[in-house]
Amino acid sequence: MPTVDDVPARLLLGSGPSPVPERILTALAHPTVGHLDPAFGALQDDVAALLRATMRTSNKVTFPLSATGSGGMQAMVDTLIAPGERVVVGVHGAFGGRMADALGRAGADVVKVEAEWGRALDRDALISAAADPSTRALFVVHGETSTGVAQPLDGLADAIHAHDGLFLVDCVTSLAGHPLDLDAAGVDAAFSGTQKCLNVPPGLAPFTVGDRGLTRLQRRSWYFDLQAMVDYWFADGPRAYHHTAPINMIYALHEGLRIVEEEGLEARWARHARAHEALRSAFSVLGFERFAPDGEQLHSLLAVSVPEGIDEAAVRGALLREDGIEVSGGLGPFAGRAWRIGVMGAGANPEPQERLVRATAQKLSRPPGDEQAAVRALEEGWAA
Amino acid sequence: MPTVDDVPARLLLGSGPSPVPERILTALAHPTVGHLDPAFGALQDDVAALLRATMRTSNKVTFPLSATGSGGMQAMVDTLIAPGERVVVGVHGAFGGRMADALGRAGADVVKVEAEWGRALDRDALISAAADPSTRALFVVHGETSTGVAQPLDGLADAIHAHDGLFLVDCVTSLAGHPLDLDAAGVDAAFSGTQKCLNVPPGLAPFTVGDRGLTRLQRRSWYFDLQAMVDYWFADGPRAYHHTAPINMIYALHEGLRIVEEEGLEARWARHARAHEALRSAFSVLGFERFAPDGEQLHSLLAVSVPEGIDEAAVRGALLREDGIEVSGGLGPFAGRAWRIGVMGAGANPEPQERLVRATAQKLSRPPGDEQAAVRALEEGWAA
Repeated sequence: MPTVDDVPARLLLGSGPSPVPERILTALAHPTVGHLDPAFGALQDDVAALLRATMRTSNKVTFPLSATGSGGMQAMVDTLIAPGERVVVGVHGAFGGRMADALGRAGADVVKVEAEWGRALDRDALISAAADPSTRALFVVHGETSTGVAQPLDGLADAIHAHDGLFLVDCVTSLAGHPLDLDAAGVDAAFSGTQKCLNVPPGLAPFTVGDRGLTRLQRRSWYFDLQAMVDYWFADGPRAYHHTAPINMIYALHEGLRIVEEEGLEARWARHARAHEALRSAFSVLGFERFAPDGEQLHSLLAVSVPEGIDEAAVRGALLREDGIEVSGGLGPFAGRAWRIGVMGAGANPEPQERLVRATAQKLSRPPGDEQAAVRALEEGWAA
Repeated sequence: MPTVDDVPARLLLGSGPSPVPERILTALAHPTVGHLDPAFGALQDDVAALLRATMRTSNKVTFPLSATGSGGMQAMVDTLIAPGERVVVGVHGAFGGRMADALGRAGADVVKVEAEWGRALDRDALISAAADPSTRALFVVHGETSTGVAQPLDGLADAIHAHDGLFLVDCVTSLAGHPLDLDAAGVDAAFSGTQKCLNVPPGLAPFTVGDRGLTRLQRRSWYFDLQAMVDYWFADGPRAYHHTAPINMIYALHEGLRIVEEEGLEARWARHARAHEALRSAFSVLGFERFAPDGEQLHSLLAVSVPEGIDEAAVRGALLREDGIEVSGGLGPFAGRAWRIGVMGAGANPEPQERLVRATAQKLSRPPGDEQAAVRALEEGWAA
């Protein structure tokens, strides 16, 4: 029978999970305490404060939901959308598509605004759909993990707020890696994940909701009952037990958020932008070209086309088995022709990137000159 | 700002989380890998096998859901019950009550069969309600964490299976601590938690469902879509990505299940029974009497009345602050007059129990003779 020690260490440069620093693993393994312990309560307050700073929001209700990032999406559906409500959903990749699916299952009247994979959504199309007074919410994915595209948020909030609808955002892959200011963008609620630019293991969904959302809370789900979670996380008096919080994962998230604070959010964004461009240059030397055009790229995820004639799954498999490096393949229409390379937190640094670039060049049996040229491009990108 | 190091170590003898052994914390902090990594897949298969053995079920679909135990309850509601279906719910404490609440929110036609807090449900009443041919499911809590009562399951399955209804069970607090054989009891689906007798931190919901349940899957929730999870956990070919599994929590669960296997399930049940009776005797010396009558007690949780005139919350608070020991107060009608003491896994041993008994006697300012008598009762219980 296997044990966890049979699971080898990997360099995680795929679409997530991302590399988890030792100090986050150490925090994760801190002795478990009770979910109503005052010492844990103090840490919860600090998690909420650090998360507000990282999300750039003043929303009181900002905390990690007890589920993975996808559970944050479900909580958004279950708590902010009533059956029959018209919701405009931007779909320019797998994660917009899954939100449309989740909303449809919940009985919402889903109106899709679509763009081709690898491009941002057209702002005017979103505004036009959101402007219909019957539209109760507008949802977009800020960082499309399936295509490496960042969706500009500016101008969208006004269109939906004009008739008091909600502006909802998925920031799973962008949070703490790509510039994002939720309050400035007028976002009413957003969810994220821990296993991307925060470098925390998967298992929690950072979530925020402001006053406009809190006036419309649905309570059809017991587990995703936001009001009950507010009574636990943000009680005026004693915290009211709802469910047992995932204590150790919250320890790890706290440490991940402290690392973001230490670096500084804007410095972190700048590092991710630089890391993205450096890696893009290096992979371009090897014949992998970014799908997203300039200005639409998501810094934390580089999605590139795989050169003709290469069995991308075989190369990825060999990288994992022989070099211990994980990169991700494509989803949906990108399957078999894309690589998705994470540029996330600790992974957005020269050393892990050079390991990947060298290993890829070798797996492709490129002449040594190509490998050197790719590494030079990486170094020049970092020096820029 | 606090760090996790400001959270002190505690002896967790409340209603859960329970004491987490060092080797489980070590497994938790094993380096994170990807959710589609073949090395992780091998561990998933082993988690499923160990969980089947611990639950005593041959159900293929036996795995940890990516949410806490309460999320397992929600998944049961979202995937196995359609709106309008008549569901009989046994309510003899807080956790039967919350299931009735969750089902009602989901639009089920909930029929409660009730018993007073501190007692098991009447079997004939359950059978009679379940026997109505319009009843589509019968739900009971096997181990009521709010009262320390174990609900006998025998005879219930036939009543609901007679017209092809589902027999559903909450085994959050009983799993791996109190005798339970899901297949022998004819259970169609059950959920549990990790933070009770498995001694794993909170964050996952062990879940099992058999063929009768799988033919009736509802898919109204995207996150709790059991079919999608089956396609990831139990794929015939490549595992299909649904959401990013909580990798490190699954590491920890694997280690917790290995510890159960090493001890042997029946030896573990016997140890919990002995630990329960020993602690009951010791607390009886101090004037705390068990609510559950003989034969209805849940071995893994001792719920006792607090002697008249004692401010139970003040004593619990002092135990936590001064001795680092957590016990739980009462919920609902038991608030202010009950203590709930966990007898769970590593906590079901003489040493932690003696620490609690001594500290309680001292907090109550009992004469040294009382403390000695209580410790003697504990020792005699273990020697019996």
